[in-house]
Amino acid sequence: MLEKSFLNLDDTIASISTAWGEAGIAIVRLSGPQALDIAEKAFRGIKPLKDTPPRYMRNGFLLDERGAPIDEVLGVWFRSPKSYTGEDVVEIHCHGGLLVASKCLELLIAQGARLAEPGEFTQRAFLNGRIDLTQAEAVLGVIRAKSDEALLSAARTLRGELSAKVNSIYDSLLNISATLEANLDFPEEDIPYLSKDDLFQSLNAIALNLQDVIYRCKVGKALRDGIKVAIVGRPNVGKSSIFNALLEETRAIVTPIPGTTRDIIEGSIVHKGIPIIFMDTAGLRATDDLVETIGVSMAQKALREADLRLWIIDGSEQLTKEEIDMAMELKNHSHIVAINKADIPQVISLEDVRQMLPESEIMVLSSYDKEAIRELKERIVKKLFKDSAINEGFNATARQIETLKSVLSCVENSISSLVSGEPQDLVASNLLEARYHIDRLLGRNFDEDLIHLIFSQFCVGK
Amino acid sequence: MLEKSFLNLDDTIASISTAWGEAGIAIVRLSGPQALDIAEKAFRGIKPLKDTPPRYMRNGFLLDERGAPIDEVLGVWFRSPKSYTGEDVVEIHCHGGLLVASKCLELLIAQGARLAEPGEFTQRAFLNGRIDLTQAEAVLGVIRAKSDEALLSAARTLRGELSAKVNSIYDSLLNISATLEANLDFPEEDIPYLSKDDLFQSLNAIALNLQDVIYRCKVGKALRDGIKVAIVGRPNVGKSSIFNALLEETRAIVTPIPGTTRDIIEGSIVHKGIPIIFMDTAGLRATDDLVETIGVSMAQKALREADLRLWIIDGSEQLTKEEIDMAMELKNHSHIVAINKADIPQVISLEDVRQMLPESEIMVLSSYDKEAIRELKERIVKKLFKDSAINEGFNATARQIETLKSVLSCVENSISSLVSGEPQDLVASNLLEARYHIDRLLGRNFDEDLIHLIFSQFCVGK
Repeated sequence: MLEKSFLNLDDTIASISTAWGEAGIAIVRLSGPQALDIAEKAFRGIKPLKDTPPRYMRNGFLLDERGAPIDEVLGVWFRSPKSYTGEDVVEIHCHGGLLVASKCLELLIAQGARLAEPGEFTQRAFLNGRIDLTQAEAVLGVIRAKSDEALLSAARTLRGELSAKVNSIYDSLLNISATLEANLDFPEEDIPYLSKDDLFQSLNAIALNLQDVIYRCKVGKALRDGIKVAIVGRPNVGKSSIFNALLEETRAIVTPIPGTTRDIIEGSIVHKGIPIIFMDTAGLRATDDLVETIGVSMAQKALREADLRLWIIDGSEQLTKEEIDMAMELKNHSHIVAINKADIPQVISLEDVRQMLPESEIMVLSSYDKEAIRELKERIVKKLFKDSAINEGFNATARQIETLKSVLSCVENSISSLVSGEPQDLVASNLLEARYHIDRLLGRNFDEDLIHLIFSQFCVGK
Repeated sequence: MLEKSFLNLDDTIASISTAWGEAGIAIVRLSGPQALDIAEKAFRGIKPLKDTPPRYMRNGFLLDERGAPIDEVLGVWFRSPKSYTGEDVVEIHCHGGLLVASKCLELLIAQGARLAEPGEFTQRAFLNGRIDLTQAEAVLGVIRAKSDEALLSAARTLRGELSAKVNSIYDSLLNISATLEANLDFPEEDIPYLSKDDLFQSLNAIALNLQDVIYRCKVGKALRDGIKVAIVGRPNVGKSSIFNALLEETRAIVTPIPGTTRDIIEGSIVHKGIPIIFMDTAGLRATDDLVETIGVSMAQKALREADLRLWIIDGSEQLTKEEIDMAMELKNHSHIVAINKADIPQVISLEDVRQMLPESEIMVLSSYDKEAIRELKERIVKKLFKDSAINEGFNATARQIETLKSVLSCVENSISSLVSGEPQDLVASNLLEARYHIDRLLGRNFDEDLIHLIFSQFCVGK
């Protein structure tokens, strides 16, 4: 159960909003209806904060419970709604000592503030309608960003570009629904008529737009969380050698004895701002050895869950029966084929593989060839994302992408209904459901558990 | 050698001024003549900072090198001389991500700022005359304070109470010197005449004043750095048992075999805000054992360097020849005598010890008696500091205390000269030297090495 206070906006919350450690400056922040009253009791400037213009940084002293000055500080307040949370906010900027910052927080709490939960300032910004849920989640994206590209993608979402796109889709859907329903309710009246053809074109445009947004969200998620590449293939084809070459260091044990790599070994690099997590899997073959069986089943799981599969085959040996089965299996998943051991005499050519997998991207390489390994990294990123897309990502979580997919699926259903000549109220009900999902995405419609889950990932003081 | 830039105020310095870690807010600070110009290139608000009133926190975006917004930030500037450093200062408040804060700093450096040295902001405040050297050093005291009392003492010094005291002493000295020199130069003229008696009284008042200041500085130093108490005595009198009882936990090995504790074992507690570091020493006796000899000589060093010696004797046994020698040695040092093992039949009484050491503070106790151990802690603090003094400390370093002692010694010399009827110009030259030391203390007179030494102890960003 959630604490009742969590969605309560009546009390005033406080916390240290800078990182914990000795430093020049620490900020203790208050937000809520009593922010000014509480702060006045611990802050003494030439004038009280209430007689200080909002956003003006006033010099003053931080006073302890007996009124003794314990630090020279700056005090500043932000008037609701023009603040981070949308409420009255006060910041006390004290010296960045561990004791002095805690002491300041303690004094404010003694005067009636409540210690803020993790993410509660941002949650209040959301609950007060200053930002929507995609923007709130982007705050965490900005704080956690590990590459320039990830930061840009989070900042873009924070300043509302994703919200704007989604809101415009919402408005289009609403317009169509309104016209559709008017046509249904008052077929005789003089209402702008939406022909089946117009409707089809509008819905198609929306679907395309949604696909683009989802794609950009996937890019943003990849920039933040990285992409998983499973390296698969039968034993002894050189999976670990290629894994090591991709990581440019020796991590896995590379040995020619079949079945040596029994566990999944992970290693990650950053390429074009995207963290790529490579998973070196055990040889995918039937075996009686228990430990090896566990390794194989983990490999199958990795293979299913990866964003991309890198299938390694040994160019110096004929394909086995299992490998041909594997090729058929891979057809259903995003993959790249690497014909390895190009440095020794080959019995399999690129053409042989292309005959079997005509749609696949195929490379011939050797793990010793640095240029080829670089090319492989490039192809992995390109296989998943258009080059230009990396500079257009939106910060998004798995939940947000799933919600957007639900919106898309409703729009696609409405298109099918339309095409197959089903009654227009079926089309309308699909569009209504699409709008419901957008409301969830932007947080215009939420349940407490979800909100709690989202904001509990934040640090205290944000 | 110092880098030439270190005392240079022409360039603009920048650094992250909050602690390093993921948090709600991070502050990147600029100080120097180009602070505004540099910040404008990375900050974009509705209006530029130069058209924003000083100290007004403006919303805006942080722009990367290509002008893309990478974070929503607040920008604020402080006009020289009303800023922390006395120079133009700009603060960018960005989200507290590791990447975004570093990125912000990087952008400002790319625009012409120089990465600040540790403590360089405070150093500039000092070099620009906004604070004196005792205040600058107190900034570190505030940041490092580990107890409320230490924080109060540092805050008191930071806001200039020590400076005010010392400045008033300086003025008194200057007045006396001026009158003295006028009397010497123009004995015939109608200048207010300072009688020998007046002079004696004035100088004595100054000396008393200085003693008080030095005492309060020692209190402040003890609050910050703690006091060292050496536990000494011949082997097997129960030093380790008392050490453990004082620490309220078992740290040293307590055993009745003479000479067991060969190394010095330290343990610390905080009593009335003062950290007390107890040093349990090896038995102080002549020995042939090499390892034990090293222990004994360390004990002698600890005995010399401690702020207080706690001499333990065994009340159930007669004093040895070495112990009587020890008593004579202790007369010259601050100490407390503890007659231990009060729980078994006694052969030494408090009166026996008082006869030998009539001036000493003496306690009879047993290490098992918690009340007595508490009383002992109380007496240790009281032996060094008057109770009231703990609330009147000044943040001071060993260097500052030494400098104040030099001032006092000059004043005392001038009093001796006066009393012994030496020429008044000798009195005058002593007073001149006293003023010279005050100038050094407040930093009106300094060398680069000292300044470098002081500020290099600061964290970056302060």
